[in-house]
Amino acid sequence: MESCLVRSFLSISPESHFSLQNLPFGIFRSDEKQEPRPGVAIGEYVLDLRVVAEAGLFSGPLLSGSDCFKQISLNSFMALGRPAWKEARNTIQRLLSEDEPTLQNNYSLRKKALVPMSEVKLELPAVIGDYSDFFSSKDHVMTCGTIYRGEDYRIPPNWLYLPIAYHGRSSSIVVSGTDIIRPWGQTGPPNSTSPPEFKPSNRVDFELEMAMFVGPGNDLGTRVSIHDAADHIFGLVLMNDWSARDIQKWESSPLGPFLGKSFGTTISPWIVTLEALEPFICEAPVQDPAPPPYLEELGRKTYDIPLQVSIFPEGAKAASVVCQSNFKYLYWTLSQQLAHHTVNGCNLKPGDLLASGTISGPILGSNGSMLELSWNGQKDLKLANGDSRKFLEDNDDVIITASCQGDGFVVGFGTCSGKVFPARYGKAL
Amino acid sequence: MESCLVRSFLSISPESHFSLQNLPFGIFRSDEKQEPRPGVAIGEYVLDLRVVAEAGLFSGPLLSGSDCFKQISLNSFMALGRPAWKEARNTIQRLLSEDEPTLQNNYSLRKKALVPMSEVKLELPAVIGDYSDFFSSKDHVMTCGTIYRGEDYRIPPNWLYLPIAYHGRSSSIVVSGTDIIRPWGQTGPPNSTSPPEFKPSNRVDFELEMAMFVGPGNDLGTRVSIHDAADHIFGLVLMNDWSARDIQKWESSPLGPFLGKSFGTTISPWIVTLEALEPFICEAPVQDPAPPPYLEELGRKTYDIPLQVSIFPEGAKAASVVCQSNFKYLYWTLSQQLAHHTVNGCNLKPGDLLASGTISGPILGSNGSMLELSWNGQKDLKLANGDSRKFLEDNDDVIITASCQGDGFVVGFGTCSGKVFPARYGKAL
Repeated sequence: MESCLVRSFLSISPESHFSLQNLPFGIFRSDEKQEPRPGVAIGEYVLDLRVVAEAGLFSGPLLSGSDCFKQISLNSFMALGRPAWKEARNTIQRLLSEDEPTLQNNYSLRKKALVPMSEVKLELPAVIGDYSDFFSSKDHVMTCGTIYRGEDYRIPPNWLYLPIAYHGRSSSIVVSGTDIIRPWGQTGPPNSTSPPEFKPSNRVDFELEMAMFVGPGNDLGTRVSIHDAADHIFGLVLMNDWSARDIQKWESSPLGPFLGKSFGTTISPWIVTLEALEPFICEAPVQDPAPPPYLEELGRKTYDIPLQVSIFPEGAKAASVVCQSNFKYLYWTLSQQLAHHTVNGCNLKPGDLLASGTISGPILGSNGSMLELSWNGQKDLKLANGDSRKFLEDNDDVIITASCQGDGFVVGFGTCSGKVFPARYGKAL
Repeated sequence: MESCLVRSFLSISPESHFSLQNLPFGIFRSDEKQEPRPGVAIGEYVLDLRVVAEAGLFSGPLLSGSDCFKQISLNSFMALGRPAWKEARNTIQRLLSEDEPTLQNNYSLRKKALVPMSEVKLELPAVIGDYSDFFSSKDHVMTCGTIYRGEDYRIPPNWLYLPIAYHGRSSSIVVSGTDIIRPWGQTGPPNSTSPPEFKPSNRVDFELEMAMFVGPGNDLGTRVSIHDAADHIFGLVLMNDWSARDIQKWESSPLGPFLGKSFGTTISPWIVTLEALEPFICEAPVQDPAPPPYLEELGRKTYDIPLQVSIFPEGAKAASVVCQSNFKYLYWTLSQQLAHHTVNGCNLKPGDLLASGTISGPILGSNGSMLELSWNGQKDLKLANGDSRKFLEDNDDVIITASCQGDGFVVGFGTCSGKVFPARYGKAL
């Protein structure tokens, strides 16, 4: 279908992230009083799926009797699985296409169903029960290892055999556009005879990540085979896993990161489905050594998604691009991450979020964090306005974006942005 | 009031964990078809709070207009805060007391409101958004450190300054009585030239813990002062944080425990409130060095709660007590844990669970895990039936219990039990 390009009756810019080939899902409301509702981004509009459902236009066998688009989150829709997602996508693509009169020629329905994006407030797309964060970029692992442990550093012995991850904090996940307040915390003693310090972090960092939303879950005690894993993945968002490096360093041994991460994690509002990403499938990196059988894939596929991070300092005329990376650099694939997560019988639930970890690449400028870009604060990163940065400063806006250029259309993720707000408390207590 | 002991019109054994002075909250249903509902344990009965509320008996200013007891979880009630919890407790204590005719003399209401505990199924008491697990026992830290790193081991430098914790997995928290399936997983290479193994864990362990349920939360970006922390704590449950030591050891560096924990975490169904635990307040251990000011308490109080762990092997005549410990051994208090958790601005939500970490003590037999009791599998732990254990075997039932002996009454936690079910998959894939 994509080769004989279907066009919409709406006027959509060729550069728009939200083409008729994308159709990402999210949750929005038109005003503060309106109940949040599912929508799909299309050009400069949001298609209100509640209105479409109430008009009886989801008439396929899987969705006609469902109330999933009357919910205030996408969890119910996510739980339905890929056949229902495909049915929804096909219906929406047809309704918005130039040959289809249903919406196009019904002025009152069209006005009700298509809300200008400039008028909506976007919310978190799902109630996120659990959030896990992987550590799947080999370049990130090697660079951080060298920074912290020296040039003789080798990849941890377990890293090549399993996609390492840790449990993250769900409650502090926020949607793009939310200010991130510089956290206070304990940092290591400045010298061997001092106690630790307690102060606002001065090493606030971004982490360029992507994250998958889980669709159908699995029961506790069962596992998802790597061959079925893709059917449990609803789609992808951009993520900035904000990190306070000084807090993280002092607290992390022996149980891992905690308060250095849980002051905020930003995701983009629109979930791009695996269907929309199909034209951008590419080969995943060869794995040597071969992973254990439960992580062996028949075809190693991933997605070619160019990623970009910019910093927009307060008062600057423009943002400065500080990183250009790609999702395809990740060593462990989405299916490997999900299969590994459940191999012990851990249950996933619809709406759970599994993030990639920082996505760094092998080429210059593809490091997905300030920790790497400034070599742990040892060198300055120059910005376009003449400023330089080792870590983030107050009122820096960090903007992550990603778009895939198809043959005559774009599948984009919009933006995942957040501004570093100054520390809130004037003193220690 | 406790000194002039109020008695119930119900016949309650003096040894019952669920005295009129306890009144722990939980969620239950009488049969599979009934919607789960809030209840309070009293002797051999569960008081159905939905029935009590529908009869208009919560007539105090904070609860008379509330629908919190019509919910299927306790989250709404938890969110109301201590004044509402006290109002509920006073109302329930009065309704169940021997001098009060309302329930006692209304046969039909009494029959409807008091359900024999033998006839109910207990559920998780709350929807747990996030679960964090602390590491607050100094004896546990020292013993594990010595086992893993040798006798020269010293407490990690950060441990004495902050209550270390990690994010746990919420989805796999289950209520007492749920079987725990022995997990499969990667374990470290048996020798330096081998790849890792993939097999059912043969080092499944229990961890004796207690956990607090959060009441009112805090907004992202704000912190809860240590002086206000207690008002955010609804109550305590027992916890068994099941651990697969071989999986955990291989995966945990550098980001902490993951699949070695997320195959199951068991909690006791009844939440004992801080009000019920007031008679058991005692002094918390002296802290040296003094913690940073945000963790300094005006009075260092904790609770004297004797804890016991037993293993009941299949076919044995009786359970063997393998550990006797006490909540009061913990170095970091509940208030310190909660204040630390929010000091970076991390938001807690009603129903979040914060666990203590393994509660080991300074005396013989007070080690709260098999890892410690068997010295990492190097010595046998003898059971009463002649068996011995290094770690848990299939069909071992692990039973944690706790009760506080008051002056003429008991405040108990019931049990937190789970049986190790054999690994489910016959082969690796």
